[in-house]
Amino acid sequence: MLLIADNLQLTLPDVARTLAARDADALQDRVAKLVAAGAEAIDINTGPLGRQAEDQMVFVFTAAAAATGRPLLIDTLNPSAIRAALEAGAANRIIINGFSLEPARLEHILPLAVEFDVEIIGYLLDERSRVPVSVDEKLGLALELYQRASEAGLPPEKLIIDPIVAPLSWQDAAAHNRALLEVLQRLPEMLGFEVQTIASLSNLTTGHAPRRQKEKLEQAFIPMLAARGLSMLLVNMDHGRSVQMARICGWLLDGSVFSWHQVDALGD
Amino acid sequence: MLLIADNLQLTLPDVARTLAARDADALQDRVAKLVAAGAEAIDINTGPLGRQAEDQMVFVFTAAAAATGRPLLIDTLNPSAIRAALEAGAANRIIINGFSLEPARLEHILPLAVEFDVEIIGYLLDERSRVPVSVDEKLGLALELYQRASEAGLPPEKLIIDPIVAPLSWQDAAAHNRALLEVLQRLPEMLGFEVQTIASLSNLTTGHAPRRQKEKLEQAFIPMLAARGLSMLLVNMDHGRSVQMARICGWLLDGSVFSWHQVDALGD
Repeated sequence: MLLIADNLQLTLPDVARTLAARDADALQDRVAKLVAAGAEAIDINTGPLGRQAEDQMVFVFTAAAAATGRPLLIDTLNPSAIRAALEAGAANRIIINGFSLEPARLEHILPLAVEFDVEIIGYLLDERSRVPVSVDEKLGLALELYQRASEAGLPPEKLIIDPIVAPLSWQDAAAHNRALLEVLQRLPEMLGFEVQTIASLSNLTTGHAPRRQKEKLEQAFIPMLAARGLSMLLVNMDHGRSVQMARICGWLLDGSVFSWHQVDALGD
Repeated sequence: MLLIADNLQLTLPDVARTLAARDADALQDRVAKLVAAGAEAIDINTGPLGRQAEDQMVFVFTAAAAATGRPLLIDTLNPSAIRAALEAGAANRIIINGFSLEPARLEHILPLAVEFDVEIIGYLLDERSRVPVSVDEKLGLALELYQRASEAGLPPEKLIIDPIVAPLSWQDAAAHNRALLEVLQRLPEMLGFEVQTIASLSNLTTGHAPRRQKEKLEQAFIPMLAARGLSMLLVNMDHGRSVQMARICGWLLDGSVFSWHQVDALGD
């Protein structure tokens, strides 16, 4: 399970200040700290970009690529900002985050992945950006995403499916998340190849609650996702216990050599 | 996921003393404390029984039944001790723990479940009591257990499958436990009914290690088991964080109404 930091959000006040001051050193320092905390990839989440969307994205993308050789996710709804980053280029593995069946995204974002030969995340949202609750509907959306991506010329291995984690504040959250787990399981068989999958863990506990409590819920959900074969997890690296849990899941499932010394090193 | 306490082990010094002194009050008090800690069922694990096997089992079984109306598991290899408890009887739901394809258990333990119309746990062990590592072999053993149980006259809903949790100290532990998770998933489809399943969590961390560290590994494995539909979890109720994790899994998957107040109540 590849751990992707969701912390580089340009709407966060300190990141916004760094960006406004065009302080590349501070941005690189921030990325380096995320990597040191265990991030294996970095999501660059712009939020709504202003008039200088392209410039802003290129600045952050370039700074992140200078700080790490790890994969970078371009996380924005702004197609011209995505294009600007892709044209700036980097040696890193690049993932566009992402598209859905919403017509504007199909038309303007999906083709960029094909043109620049990079990976792209497809969300299991319907044309009106709603999350269906049933397994069959979610699988149906996955099939349609896959077909649209194939028609656009995207190779299957460049598609990453995001089944959308439901916030626990939703009335039918448990039904959503049980269905999500089953969808993760059934996607490879339905699509006929080992499709990559991603989940955004912070969605689970949206809203105001203490970090320790969010971590408790995240710690329960991470192993569930791991047990169903999730490929990539987008996670808040400040949630140290959640990051730790993802590491423990690797010991249990990936067959890396286990020793109690590793567990000792986790602390209490 | 039904939480079963594995703490009532007659080989533990304090339980052994209670038994030697035939102190029913102390035993009942112990059982009541396990229930207060969240146990939804009690496993009575005798270890090797001495000459008074039947008397000892009847004493503990009767005391446990007096302390709680929750399910009781008769966990011993001694068929005459199992029979003695079943003849003593109780209004509780009763589960024999358990049998395997080992000839002596097939011959002497399995028939007791049929005769007394109680549930019984079948272990995915081969005739020589070894745990195979592959999914296919594990599923093959499950099919054979089911066929033997059916031939003996056991109704399908009285069979509970234990796929055997591999200790992390085993060289191929991760392969075993990945296979276990897949087996949990595939059993209902293979057998054609919603077969009950059980896992003994303490197996994962056998050996000497601090409780907090064992809990960290257990906390990762519990949601994996829950995500694959495990019916019953045998757990050490002294591992408070593991018990708490099982509860959180219920919130995430069972659709009970979620509120942050519940999470608050968990403490740090």
